[in-house]
Amino acid sequence: MEKLVASVSAFLCIFVGFSSPWSIHCVKYETGSGVKEGKLNVHLVPHSHDDVGWLKTVDQYYVGSNNGIQIACVENELDSIVEALCHDPNRKFVFAEQAFFHRWWATQDKKMQEEVRKLVDVGQLEFVNGGWSMHDEATVHYIDMIDQTTLGHWFIKEQFNKTPRAGWQIDPFGHSAVQAYLLGAEIFTNAFPVHYGPPPGFQFEVNDASEPVQDNPLLYEYNVYQRVDDFIQASIVQANVTRTNHIMWTMGGDFQYQYAESWFKQMDKLIHYVNKDGRVNALYSTPSIYVDAKFAANETWPIKSHDYLPYADRENAYWTGFFTSRPAFKRYVRALSGYYLAARQLEFLAGRSNGTNTFSLGDALGTAQHHDAITGTSKQHTTNDYAKRLAVGAYEAETVVNSALSYLVGAKLGSQSAGSTVTFGQCQLINISYCPPTEQDLPEDMSLVVVAYNPLGWSRNDTVRIPVNGRNIVVQDSVGNVIEAQYNDIENVTINLRSFYEKAYLGISSEQFPKYWLFFRVSVPPLGWSTYFISGSVKGGSESTYLSMTDSPQNQTVDIGPGNLKMSFSSSSGLLMRMFNSKTGVDVPIQQSFSWYASNTGKDGYQVSGAYIFRPSGSPPGVSRSIPNKVLRGPLVDEIHQQFDSWIYQVTRLYKDKEHAEVEFTIGPIPTNETTGKEVITRIKADMATNAVFYTDSNGRDFLKRIRDHREDWNLTVNEPVAGNYYPINLGIYVTDNKSELSVLVDRATGGTSMVDGEVELMLHRRTLLDDSRGVEEPLDETVCLQNKCEGLTVRGNYYININHLGAGARWRRTVGQEIYSPLLLAFAREENWKPSHQANSSFMDPNYCLPPNVVLITLQELEDGRILIRLAHLYEADEDLEYSTMATIELKKVFAGKEIKEVKETSLSANQGKWQMRRLNWKVEGDNDAEEPSPIRGGPVDASTLVVELGPMEIRTFLLKF
Amino acid sequence: MEKLVASVSAFLCIFVGFSSPWSIHCVKYETGSGVKEGKLNVHLVPHSHDDVGWLKTVDQYYVGSNNGIQIACVENELDSIVEALCHDPNRKFVFAEQAFFHRWWATQDKKMQEEVRKLVDVGQLEFVNGGWSMHDEATVHYIDMIDQTTLGHWFIKEQFNKTPRAGWQIDPFGHSAVQAYLLGAEIFTNAFPVHYGPPPGFQFEVNDASEPVQDNPLLYEYNVYQRVDDFIQASIVQANVTRTNHIMWTMGGDFQYQYAESWFKQMDKLIHYVNKDGRVNALYSTPSIYVDAKFAANETWPIKSHDYLPYADRENAYWTGFFTSRPAFKRYVRALSGYYLAARQLEFLAGRSNGTNTFSLGDALGTAQHHDAITGTSKQHTTNDYAKRLAVGAYEAETVVNSALSYLVGAKLGSQSAGSTVTFGQCQLINISYCPPTEQDLPEDMSLVVVAYNPLGWSRNDTVRIPVNGRNIVVQDSVGNVIEAQYNDIENVTINLRSFYEKAYLGISSEQFPKYWLFFRVSVPPLGWSTYFISGSVKGGSESTYLSMTDSPQNQTVDIGPGNLKMSFSSSSGLLMRMFNSKTGVDVPIQQSFSWYASNTGKDGYQVSGAYIFRPSGSPPGVSRSIPNKVLRGPLVDEIHQQFDSWIYQVTRLYKDKEHAEVEFTIGPIPTNETTGKEVITRIKADMATNAVFYTDSNGRDFLKRIRDHREDWNLTVNEPVAGNYYPINLGIYVTDNKSELSVLVDRATGGTSMVDGEVELMLHRRTLLDDSRGVEEPLDETVCLQNKCEGLTVRGNYYININHLGAGARWRRTVGQEIYSPLLLAFAREENWKPSHQANSSFMDPNYCLPPNVVLITLQELEDGRILIRLAHLYEADEDLEYSTMATIELKKVFAGKEIKEVKETSLSANQGKWQMRRLNWKVEGDNDAEEPSPIRGGPVDASTLVVELGPMEIRTFLLKF
Repeated sequence: MEKLVASVSAFLCIFVGFSSPWSIHCVKYETGSGVKEGKLNVHLVPHSHDDVGWLKTVDQYYVGSNNGIQIACVENELDSIVEALCHDPNRKFVFAEQAFFHRWWATQDKKMQEEVRKLVDVGQLEFVNGGWSMHDEATVHYIDMIDQTTLGHWFIKEQFNKTPRAGWQIDPFGHSAVQAYLLGAEIFTNAFPVHYGPPPGFQFEVNDASEPVQDNPLLYEYNVYQRVDDFIQASIVQANVTRTNHIMWTMGGDFQYQYAESWFKQMDKLIHYVNKDGRVNALYSTPSIYVDAKFAANETWPIKSHDYLPYADRENAYWTGFFTSRPAFKRYVRALSGYYLAARQLEFLAGRSNGTNTFSLGDALGTAQHHDAITGTSKQHTTNDYAKRLAVGAYEAETVVNSALSYLVGAKLGSQSAGSTVTFGQCQLINISYCPPTEQDLPEDMSLVVVAYNPLGWSRNDTVRIPVNGRNIVVQDSVGNVIEAQYNDIENVTINLRSFYEKAYLGISSEQFPKYWLFFRVSVPPLGWSTYFISGSVKGGSESTYLSMTDSPQNQTVDIGPGNLKMSFSSSSGLLMRMFNSKTGVDVPIQQSFSWYASNTGKDGYQVSGAYIFRPSGSPPGVSRSIPNKVLRGPLVDEIHQQFDSWIYQVTRLYKDKEHAEVEFTIGPIPTNETTGKEVITRIKADMATNAVFYTDSNGRDFLKRIRDHREDWNLTVNEPVAGNYYPINLGIYVTDNKSELSVLVDRATGGTSMVDGEVELMLHRRTLLDDSRGVEEPLDETVCLQNKCEGLTVRGNYYININHLGAGARWRRTVGQEIYSPLLLAFAREENWKPSHQANSSFMDPNYCLPPNVVLITLQELEDGRILIRLAHLYEADEDLEYSTMATIELKKVFAGKEIKEVKETSLSANQGKWQMRRLNWKVEGDNDAEEPSPIRGGPVDASTLVVELGPMEIRTFLLKF
Repeated sequence: MEKLVASVSAFLCIFVGFSSPWSIHCVKYETGSGVKEGKLNVHLVPHSHDDVGWLKTVDQYYVGSNNGIQIACVENELDSIVEALCHDPNRKFVFAEQAFFHRWWATQDKKMQEEVRKLVDVGQLEFVNGGWSMHDEATVHYIDMIDQTTLGHWFIKEQFNKTPRAGWQIDPFGHSAVQAYLLGAEIFTNAFPVHYGPPPGFQFEVNDASEPVQDNPLLYEYNVYQRVDDFIQASIVQANVTRTNHIMWTMGGDFQYQYAESWFKQMDKLIHYVNKDGRVNALYSTPSIYVDAKFAANETWPIKSHDYLPYADRENAYWTGFFTSRPAFKRYVRALSGYYLAARQLEFLAGRSNGTNTFSLGDALGTAQHHDAITGTSKQHTTNDYAKRLAVGAYEAETVVNSALSYLVGAKLGSQSAGSTVTFGQCQLINISYCPPTEQDLPEDMSLVVVAYNPLGWSRNDTVRIPVNGRNIVVQDSVGNVIEAQYNDIENVTINLRSFYEKAYLGISSEQFPKYWLFFRVSVPPLGWSTYFISGSVKGGSESTYLSMTDSPQNQTVDIGPGNLKMSFSSSSGLLMRMFNSKTGVDVPIQQSFSWYASNTGKDGYQVSGAYIFRPSGSPPGVSRSIPNKVLRGPLVDEIHQQFDSWIYQVTRLYKDKEHAEVEFTIGPIPTNETTGKEVITRIKADMATNAVFYTDSNGRDFLKRIRDHREDWNLTVNEPVAGNYYPINLGIYVTDNKSELSVLVDRATGGTSMVDGEVELMLHRRTLLDDSRGVEEPLDETVCLQNKCEGLTVRGNYYININHLGAGARWRRTVGQEIYSPLLLAFAREENWKPSHQANSSFMDPNYCLPPNVVLITLQELEDGRILIRLAHLYEADEDLEYSTMATIELKKVFAGKEIKEVKETSLSANQGKWQMRRLNWKVEGDNDAEEPSPIRGGPVDASTLVVELGPMEIRTFLLKF
């Protein structure tokens, strides 16, 4: 490589004299000796920790704008890092966040790209982790973790033909079990002594105060001996808490290497003089080199099981607030995560086009998984930026979905105007009744076409709920059968919410609002769709519709539930008293209430409750309830409406064919008092002896056993009796006693616990008025403004309650959990003079096939090169369910019926290498001889002729297919 | 030039898509269009203002250490600037301070030096000003200005064969007349609109908050149109106060371009998009290009005469404190300035050796001329560093001088031990009586050899004063004649001062102190030396010595003065009453007193008095006097000792053969009161009607007429009646009435004024306790510490008072001024059994020749290549003296008698180009037709055979000679 300015860094030259002839004396800095046996090796790993948004937005960080908030410009970093690496082939750098690297790469010319490829090829530049962002580990869903990592890994594979070897999760607020699982069975883990920066005094950012190595004897304050001594002392400190003769110094920090040469110049000198001194051996290194050296040392290592959650950095500082912080944003991410999965399926089904695609949604979601994004710990303006990116991505994905549906469904509709395209629309704000296609009155010759797409591999019956304006309409299935429909008055709280938010967020003021929720049941094939038609004023259609009536309670209790599941409420208190299932016979006394914790304002000198940290002050008072409840009953669904104070509203829906209660909460604006925020919880208390044990999922996947005031592998001192027992919940939480299970599933990341036996507690919303001193420097005080008047953000969402016999809850949790993640995708079109048609329902799978109930297709995506990426996941853990915790088989030929599969290649999880190429280091583990754990059940290789895939419990397998 | 990373800056490439095939779209930033006629041209001049020491030391600034005080690393700047310039040939940069550039250059390898030479050759890197530092203009001596500029210019010439075209004095606190004179007769001057930074919002340092140009449409917050508009608006603002279609934006600031690419990347974009917009034309430029464009515009310009002193940046903020701040440091610089001149002469006379040389003293002095160094506006630790550099330089120069004297004088001494080398020593602390070679008792067979070297071109009689321990000694001249000597008791104040400072600064405690000052008269040839011998207990020698007796006043007045000049003091008050010269008959009633201003503490909300700014509060109370005075009389000198309060001591010496009083003041430790500092002045008040007029020198050269409360070319509003009338004094100050002149010369830079007719006021010492908010963030509170006990710094120095007939004072000021600048250089050796010898006196000039009394040799230096640099300066202004303000002639053959001059080349002042090569632009001047000023008298070309140099009044001519 031609080096223009080789001398900048690799040499110390001293010219003596003022004018010629100068006597010249050059010393080359020796930095390439590598690992040395028999010495303490100090691996210097140059890196920068580049948050994909936090105090600034991701683009502000990239271009270096908004520096008034934080001096940070990733473009400068990468520009200067590449130059510094070119200066000396011994220098190395590791880079993690591909959302940034992609931005940089996309603006380099081919010559530069070539140079950088060389740097990557020779190992000077190594990608670590390599995800789009460095995802959080508490509040992310495992499908998002896989997707965002894949996005980065593909980019690296595509552009550099490399597969990252090292994980690099250096800032998430705790570590999850699933993170380790996704990386591999037993992984070698390095915990930094204090932080991901270098030892004190060795931070060499261009604006740092660490003393540089002054090795020019012609200048004053020559300090080589002192700095070498400092280096050795710091090495020994770390070596004393590290096994083997290898320690790693993470030479970097947040947005460091703005001018990379300032670091490398000092590291060149340190390596040179430290090695000349000879007491220890310093070298440029990377996590790969470091881990290989650790492995070669043939040391035996202790195993850490369980997760690293919750995390506390001080006695009273449990980072359990962020499990819930920004619940609306967390819901938006989760909703779009499911939508992204469905959109890619439809993109594949219709065939990728060259136009709009799902990339920007994947990009936005990948960005949103960052450990300051989904966590809710970014500044408000950054959160707005994440939301904007998601909205843009969703808009583009919606375009993909609409045009795919036009292609797939439109052609099959009995439209009179042959050849014309059906234009579909979707309703992202249907939860607050905003859905223009369904709200508008239907002229006589016009039908509203409702397409329901099912992203799951199982056929599915569900009840659809859409806002309509009138009730002289009729719902027909695709062959023209009129189907039963139910109207419920749209509750005032929803209309008020819609009215305010459509003005505040959409800038529109509807002239009128829909009057009813229209319910009707739909049946959709696996990975397929069904079509329904709603017509106005069809004669004789109205006898199949039912207008729910408000029920005035006559007795002490009110029972609701059109199906097996019933709930009893007290007429006097309005509160839930009991749930029972007439089919299973499970009958549990149960209460549900809302409360709030007053946020700790830190007046005791300790910790404030804020975006990161949950710290309640004192016991929470209950939130009083407004009576009377309103009860709406009908053939498809019964609803009970509860008002708790003026700012909490709850609708509980029992559908005829569901075994659970769907609870819709509307919380906000949370009233606050001076500096005291509120953290709003719901408690569901069953009469069960649960012995301090409860179960929460890890990233929506494994359920982990939690024991109140206890940690499995170390002794806990209880300083924060509430916050210290909070755990992240992405899928659900449950408790069991010797006969029953009480399970609650959630629709987004949230925090939860079980503070009392039999009780499940979820934190649903937070509004705090003080910053909790972890860097964001804003209180978590989300507001919505209209005409300069701001109020606290109102949050609406769902949780789902199920009671079951002991051992029978898993099926409900796994199946319904997947349905919550992947709801039916509804699209709407208005068509003239439709005709019934059998083809309006379809699946691309073999019509007689569906996936086994313990398997879900978590990815189906057509790549740019035409290959198909699929991921199949077993939903059950070993021993979770008697029948389903077993090997499952999937017949790929039937999944892709009508297509000829020419090649099936199993790959790593992120699909960046063939499974057979994966290299795994087998580490020696302490106590390995004591007890041999049984190997988990795993599927075998896929037979090329049968193309049957086996999946063991909790197994995820990834394949690339060619048709 | 091979460009490794050309794309970093010169292109915007946008790759669209996530994986290949990417569609690529590159835009080259067009930045090379240059000046455009008919448009407003915005010259972007990239620069960094790198103080050669201020808050940090020069080396700390260079290597980037001590960043806790200030983030600054010149090495990073130059590394990254060179790389950025290599990235794109359109980019330019101007660099000024060669003390820094030399440090960088000296550590680059040959390949890098080659690359940089190319950048300089093509004009991408231009040296502006090009001095060693950017010297102050108020407190520097013109010889230092020339020397330090020459040091930088030679370096540039030697290494790059370039001569800087543009001055670049962008931060000194006002501008002097001599600065303009040294640059040329009429110079084109550009004053910045506000500061030497870019317009607000265009500062692109790596840690700046200016919004970068975001031109990537794939990222959010695209702002090209807005930034172009901002640029144009800022251009118009400046164009509105600037003539011609050219404006200059100084794109830089203090220690900017730590990562140069961060600036250039943005400027690339701005130039590209602004020119695409087309309303104005932006270009990379330099002062040379800018000035050429201004010149080409053929505009007529107004002339600014007079200087820009004093400077005030706010109503009450006159930067007149720094004229005096750190008087001890200012004296050290001035003393070494004269010493450097003499040392280079001796270095030449003995022949340059390859060993120790005078470079490091030149380096240290060049550094000390910086506008935060000699000014006294650096932090204390930086001032200590300057002093250390000077001490190291002085030590090395002393070695040069000692060995030159050994070579020149030693061989001629009648030493018995033939072939042995005489070892000379010098006494830098002789002013406080510290001089080990003279203090020690002399054994019987031992002589103390005293060599007096005269750096002036005139022969010289002077009285030497050295400390000795006993008085049984005899002084003999070189041929053995015993000469008259006088002993005065060393005053207690000196012994106390020595005792304290030798402990504090030298770490030694003398067992005994010398008892007497020994005075004897010496006579030294021009540019030559004389040798004197002091022996112990020489029989019969004692009758020629005289021990001064303390005189107790018997009358109302005490008259002193062994020669023509007499002074009368009041016996009761002890104060001076009258000066009269028995030869000239001038007789002036005159008082002298000490006072102090209380430093303003800013309680009125305006300005504090501090290192930069002098702002007294209220009228100064007089300092009371202790009686009785002590009078010492003798044949050579009379002394009167006055104690003013406990912390001011003054010795006035009248030498037999001098026409002036030499006044030695000792001031300190200045007592302070809480936050109120003191600024100590002396006032010499003659009974003269001076009509508000007084004269102060400019950089030790021209005397400028000052009128109290008045400015020559603009209307002054008097807000600060005292501080606003202060002017810098480097040589002296005088007042005249219709018959007499009262002149006072100084031994260092100081501030002074004439607040009352007939009065001269000098500020001699300052101690302030508050920082005056101009950046240094320290009070000017100099202390000396011994065993953890600190006291205010005591300052000792001299001023010289002369009275003369009107019109006759110039000769005294010019001649004595030069003698003060270039005192006799004394060296001492101890020799056994010496013999008298005629050769112990010598000059290298023709023994019958000396320079005319109106000419001084301000430089005589042998260069490394053997050529000889000389500078001859005419000492008088036109009309200053009837006889001497005329053309002077110098016969070079007689100056260098015994050497054959083979070549005489006249050069520019800094000797970096032949005089015939100098190119001067002739500007059109407003009002040029009104009055034709007479051309000044200038010497003609030097005839190659006669080698006679002519000098007109105030002319300085520079020659390079070859022997």
